[in-house]
Amino acid sequence: MSESESVEVTGHLMDTGILSRILDDIREYGGDYVIDRFDVGHEAADTSRATITVSAEDDDSLQRLLMRLQTRGVNQVDPGEVGVAPCEQDGVFPDGFYSTTNLVTRIRMGGRWFPVENPEMDCGLIIDFDDDRRPVRVYTLPMADVRSGMNVVVGADGIRVEVPVTEKREGAFGFMESDVSSEKPQAVLVRQVAEGMRDAKAAGKKVLWVGGPGVVHTGAAPAMVALVHAGFVDVLFAGNALATHDIEAALYGTSLGVDLAMGRGVEHGHEHHIRALNTIRKEGSIRAAVESGTLTGGIMHALVTHGREFVLVGSVRDDGPLPDVYTDVIDGQRAMRAKLTDVGFCLMVATMLHSVATGNILPASVPLVCVDINPATVTKLSDRGSSQARGIVTDVGLFLEQLAVELVPGYRS
Amino acid sequence: MSESESVEVTGHLMDTGILSRILDDIREYGGDYVIDRFDVGHEAADTSRATITVSAEDDDSLQRLLMRLQTRGVNQVDPGEVGVAPCEQDGVFPDGFYSTTNLVTRIRMGGRWFPVENPEMDCGLIIDFDDDRRPVRVYTLPMADVRSGMNVVVGADGIRVEVPVTEKREGAFGFMESDVSSEKPQAVLVRQVAEGMRDAKAAGKKVLWVGGPGVVHTGAAPAMVALVHAGFVDVLFAGNALATHDIEAALYGTSLGVDLAMGRGVEHGHEHHIRALNTIRKEGSIRAAVESGTLTGGIMHALVTHGREFVLVGSVRDDGPLPDVYTDVIDGQRAMRAKLTDVGFCLMVATMLHSVATGNILPASVPLVCVDINPATVTKLSDRGSSQARGIVTDVGLFLEQLAVELVPGYRS
Amino acid sequence: MSESESVEVTGHLMDTGILSRILDDIREYGGDYVIDRFDVGHEAADTSRATITVSAEDDDSLQRLLMRLQTRGVNQVDPGEVGVAPCEQDGVFPDGFYSTTNLVTRIRMGGRWFPVENPEMDCGLIIDFDDDRRPVRVYTLPMADVRSGMNVVVGADGIRVEVPVTEKREGAFGFMESDVSSEKPQAVLVRQVAEGMRDAKAAGKKVLWVGGPGVVHTGAAPAMVALVHAGFVDVLFAGNALATHDIEAALYGTSLGVDLAMGRGVEHGHEHHIRALNTIRKEGSIRAAVESGTLTGGIMHALVTHGREFVLVGSVRDDGPLPDVYTDVIDGQRAMRAKLTDVGFCLMVATMLHSVATGNILPASVPLVCVDINPATVTKLSDRGSSQARGIVTDVGLFLEQLAVELVPGYRS
Amino acid sequence: MSESESVEVTGHLMDTGILSRILDDIREYGGDYVIDRFDVGHEAADTSRATITVSAEDDDSLQRLLMRLQTRGVNQVDPGEVGVAPCEQDGVFPDGFYSTTNLVTRIRMGGRWFPVENPEMDCGLIIDFDDDRRPVRVYTLPMADVRSGMNVVVGADGIRVEVPVTEKREGAFGFMESDVSSEKPQAVLVRQVAEGMRDAKAAGKKVLWVGGPGVVHTGAAPAMVALVHAGFVDVLFAGNALATHDIEAALYGTSLGVDLAMGRGVEHGHEHHIRALNTIRKEGSIRAAVESGTLTGGIMHALVTHGREFVLVGSVRDDGPLPDVYTDVIDGQRAMRAKLTDVGFCLMVATMLHSVATGNILPASVPLVCVDINPATVTKLSDRGSSQARGIVTDVGLFLEQLAVELVPGYRS
Repeated sequence: MSESESVEVTGHLMDTGILSRILDDIREYGGDYVIDRFDVGHEAADTSRATITVSAEDDDSLQRLLMRLQTRGVNQVDPGEVGVAPCEQDGVFPDGFYSTTNLVTRIRMGGRWFPVENPEMDCGLIIDFDDDRRPVRVYTLPMADVRSGMNVVVGADGIRVEVPVTEKREGAFGFMESDVSSEKPQAVLVRQVAEGMRDAKAAGKKVLWVGGPGVVHTGAAPAMVALVHAGFVDVLFAGNALATHDIEAALYGTSLGVDLAMGRGVEHGHEHHIRALNTIRKEGSIRAAVESGTLTGGIMHALVTHGREFVLVGSVRDDGPLPDVYTDVIDGQRAMRAKLTDVGFCLMVATMLHSVATGNILPASVPLVCVDINPATVTKLSDRGSSQARGIVTDVGLFLEQLAVELVPGYRS
Repeated sequence: MSESESVEVTGHLMDTGILSRILDDIREYGGDYVIDRFDVGHEAADTSRATITVSAEDDDSLQRLLMRLQTRGVNQVDPGEVGVAPCEQDGVFPDGFYSTTNLVTRIRMGGRWFPVENPEMDCGLIIDFDDDRRPVRVYTLPMADVRSGMNVVVGADGIRVEVPVTEKREGAFGFMESDVSSEKPQAVLVRQVAEGMRDAKAAGKKVLWVGGPGVVHTGAAPAMVALVHAGFVDVLFAGNALATHDIEAALYGTSLGVDLAMGRGVEHGHEHHIRALNTIRKEGSIRAAVESGTLTGGIMHALVTHGREFVLVGSVRDDGPLPDVYTDVIDGQRAMRAKLTDVGFCLMVATMLHSVATGNILPASVPLVCVDINPATVTKLSDRGSSQARGIVTDVGLFLEQLAVELVPGYRS
Repeated sequence: MSESESVEVTGHLMDTGILSRILDDIREYGGDYVIDRFDVGHEAADTSRATITVSAEDDDSLQRLLMRLQTRGVNQVDPGEVGVAPCEQDGVFPDGFYSTTNLVTRIRMGGRWFPVENPEMDCGLIIDFDDDRRPVRVYTLPMADVRSGMNVVVGADGIRVEVPVTEKREGAFGFMESDVSSEKPQAVLVRQVAEGMRDAKAAGKKVLWVGGPGVVHTGAAPAMVALVHAGFVDVLFAGNALATHDIEAALYGTSLGVDLAMGRGVEHGHEHHIRALNTIRKEGSIRAAVESGTLTGGIMHALVTHGREFVLVGSVRDDGPLPDVYTDVIDGQRAMRAKLTDVGFCLMVATMLHSVATGNILPASVPLVCVDINPATVTKLSDRGSSQARGIVTDVGLFLEQLAVELVPGYRS
Repeated sequence: MSESESVEVTGHLMDTGILSRILDDIREYGGDYVIDRFDVGHEAADTSRATITVSAEDDDSLQRLLMRLQTRGVNQVDPGEVGVAPCEQDGVFPDGFYSTTNLVTRIRMGGRWFPVENPEMDCGLIIDFDDDRRPVRVYTLPMADVRSGMNVVVGADGIRVEVPVTEKREGAFGFMESDVSSEKPQAVLVRQVAEGMRDAKAAGKKVLWVGGPGVVHTGAAPAMVALVHAGFVDVLFAGNALATHDIEAALYGTSLGVDLAMGRGVEHGHEHHIRALNTIRKEGSIRAAVESGTLTGGIMHALVTHGREFVLVGSVRDDGPLPDVYTDVIDGQRAMRAKLTDVGFCLMVATMLHSVATGNILPASVPLVCVDINPATVTKLSDRGSSQARGIVTDVGLFLEQLAVELVPGYRS
């Protein structure tokens, strides 16, 4: 272990098991460590602070380990200055590029700290300089969007991240911190999600929904429509399926063949589905179909009539697709990123694909709740790095019904 | 194939896929068949009728195949007369004993038909004779309860079963006929279960609940208590766990460590649990704990104060157990059987073990709904022969909450 | 019900429950029926034949019902002649377009029958005419690819489909017909999949694999590499994830942070992952990385060095992506379709997204086995219309290990 | 918080997240804490040591909190002397009884330490005194077995526990420490379980198996029989189902109707099942059926002919049951406890009920691996307090097949 660096981390370290994960990471990357100092918070409310010397076989390994540790909020004691290298090939970062976290980030240059505009994980850091080579802008950029000549941060030096201060087990989202479970008092959870949405709206922030077709299949469309009316859905990220099934239900009273009124189900009712797609394609867009009077109900109709935004991104299993769907997934990611400004709360419902996609681009500072009947969806999200994600394993239809009762005066009464 | 028999079956044969399953059974038992006649129902509402010659290698195989087919409602065209053999050893049926179905059953003796008292699957048929060897009583008896000298039906001759007439896709339970699914409009399902319970009560029948500890963990205890108060829980079958967690919650405000008021959860809170058990054991019974004022809330308290019945049967993983628990499972089965009279509706919630146990002893004529967040529980029940079982894959907590809103005036208002 | 049509269906109708599903469809579409004639197969091996008059409220509903029934192999007794209408808008079919099945299909024109080139479900049927307006080519085309001026079949007249003759419960894939189950003797299943692959190769057909990243995570990459070497992988359909994790494992000995040699796992090891992507992007393609000596092992390396084909189609959750990935999903679908010629067997492993996508475009005549530890993946495929799909719920890693032992002489010895 | 106590804990505290769980427990019990001292292990291999003052509202709450913390290996700095109270009622512990952990435990009396004989969680501690009231024996006893007049430890004073020294991420079972996952390289896991069994046998210890009927359904019976022959199954804990399905397969070549040779499955083949039960009941016992030549193959036959032990404990869903089955679950627990001596390795396969039951009574010092295709089974075990449990989510049939290949020379060759 010829290379080493002194790092530090502050927070409710033992409380949250974060130190355990840091040490795991070091071993995982073939590194070693000595804990130089550990100032423990004496009272329950105090934070702790650890100083650790981490070492690795060579500088390349060390730099990569330091980047990995930053995803946990671990910073170098003596950060130094950022290294910069030019991009030499469109869509390719220079060797040793700094791989970002989704935490609030600053970089140090010329002894001064500059904030990073839009924290997003697994990106590069780009610096725009003025003529005196002073930073005027620092921002994350996904690999596909980097262009030759851009200034890219390399190595782990000169970068600090900040973990959101979670007041453990207090406030709106303490409840779900311990783990993912289907054995939780659900009524309390519904109420707390409602509070999270109200808080976001009260703070002038947007509420982002990410949804899968299960929203329609479970009969939750009326509840979601009511929530759109009441102003609790500012943006929707979804795929072709949610929108098509919603429109199919509005046009033919079915969703993949489920007769919603009678609670009957059959197999994939391919014919309704494909015909609904053709109808909207003929109109040119969902908005056009609403304006022409072809589409008169459902979630998409409500979003259009209330001027809410939606981004539909396609997948390889799509039929059609709807004319509003981004068929290029990288274009779709860009469109989603463009709607993240001012999002203050995110609810993910019944979709693994779009939930993970949104988790990939969302800053860690946005409260995030994921609701699914399948525990794997919820677990996957946390494993992918959305550490702020809180999971609720429950029935999506009944959950949204209850949420509408909480948030929409007069709903179901 | 040296032995053969002519059998018949009537009903919505193609509609329900029943004929497909009959032919599968024949193959499964190594038999063969010729369809002699098939009178198809022309209109959608008409029933069909098939006459089939089934054959097998020897008479023993044929008899067993005929018994198997009776579980599908297939009867011999010429039933003949029942064979009877004496039980020669306690707890052991004679060779070739008739293995029962859970369908309405009659036996033929001396040219007359006698009804079987209590249809239950996988039992033997016992005949009590009067002094002239005329049947005075015919009833099912589980293997463990047969006693030397009893008259046991052997072979498949002289027996007719009747499949309940299900008006396919009509009435209260048409909705769930097609399959088990988590993608169903749940609000409709809640309403239909509520109707099923009201119908049973209106007909003077009892509503049987079978529950697991998930009822408590999901925070549904208040909803279930309200349903007990409102008269929609006549009998509860459960294990040591549901009762202990309910009592633990009542005594300490926890359930396996879940703080119900705040929605927080931790791991197995063994200490509360074991102390709650000791407390009730000291009192001598749950009823005694209610009467002494030790136990003042929860599901078990509600059942005791409203004079409702419960049967708690233990399992090998139990702590304690509570003094009311049958530790001998065969005794427990007997106690459960004794409560089945006049049951007109059965709701199974969040338990595989006790659901299967109840499915084993319940006549096919009792409407049966199984609610669980785990699809496997619901599937298992149907596979085990409870063909009338309708499954709802949903969150138990929210489901019972909604059910209480439907059935209990003023609940949550 | 003012409109009606006489239809017929032939096959092991009762055996397979197909008639039950047909009658369900009729009800689902609000239609009615009379069974005019039912010629039942007397012996077990005989086929049955039913003639049914179906009716609907109006001709539009009737036509759509007839299309739905064709997915079950139901044809009109008097097919008549196909209707044709011109496409008037790129990417939009004319009203009343015929929605295709994945069955072998013929159309009737001028009293003659013309075969459809490439059966695929949920498409339109396009006819190319010669100067005398005689059909020279009839083929399926997805909605997105139709162009103004093309001749599109409308209505259900003049079309016949053929259900593949499944010798029920005989031959290679009889084993899995009954249902999806994790409780099956797995060794037998492995052997039968091996036979299916050998049969396809012996017939000069290609073996298509559809895989998810679980192939790498479960440690099955060496087994799959051995199967590539042995010639049992002709084409691979996958996403960015399988290829990236495979390449990450080859470059860094990890897969999402799993240390494969020691069986240890951690959370999303984002840094390795994103760096592997950058490395291949720098090379320009996976093939270039193999040729430059950068990539020296793993599944993708084996495919390249053996000259096998692969189609990687992106999704909205992708990082990078690899330069070989189709980022436009509709382009990706086209690339997949182009590789389907001569496919004689399809194995889907550990992916829901790409399995459903492949099921959407694969003719029903190609044997199809889906292996996943999650029962929902397997069920979903059948529900979407891939009725030939056979599901095996098992561990992907051990399954592929056993498959390699069956198919590759000397593997693991 | 009027009552407080100084406690200490030693080990890889941050590494294993144990401190985080300790602080959670304190909060859960309504207590508070001050960390007085934290001596951190500087090198990765060093252990840490924390001294904490915990406080609670009253002494009763404090005592219970201290008991809870002992399940984490937390001891009082100044242990004091055990309190003892007499049992006054059969089957009921005195108020304030000490609730045991499954850790190695000692009690202090008269300034001397006495070891506890058989660590088991959720029991009481009984002390047998000699005539001079000096302890001659200290042992755990379940609530149901305590008798009036016995000396029971009360309160948390005078008791020390020892957490097994796990050399984190080293040795046979480091591999599975991080979590339960279906995405793990399975071949490595099989090999490591094989090593664990060989180590136990080499140390002169017994290998305990706990199995469910899935062992038979997945076709793993031949592999398990080979492992019995090879000496790797010393004791089997199971229910009526495993044994009955195994015997049914031996007698009729079926298991719940699964035709093992052909890989075909059907629904619950009730008739075979019930007839197999009757056959063994007629013989009087499984051993008698083996000796009379009635039962000639399968797992139970192998156990009998090799003189291995088995304990079958019934459940409320059982048919029959077999004559060897304990129908009283408390008797069954006693029989299981009696077989735990010298168990050096425990493998749980395909059963939640009996796995939890065994986890309840097994000391934490016995290595424990749980294999199931259902992640919930594996998770449940850890949640219930078997912290040493390592989970493998995989296909049981293929896993046991591979295990036999590893352990039995010549198997499948």
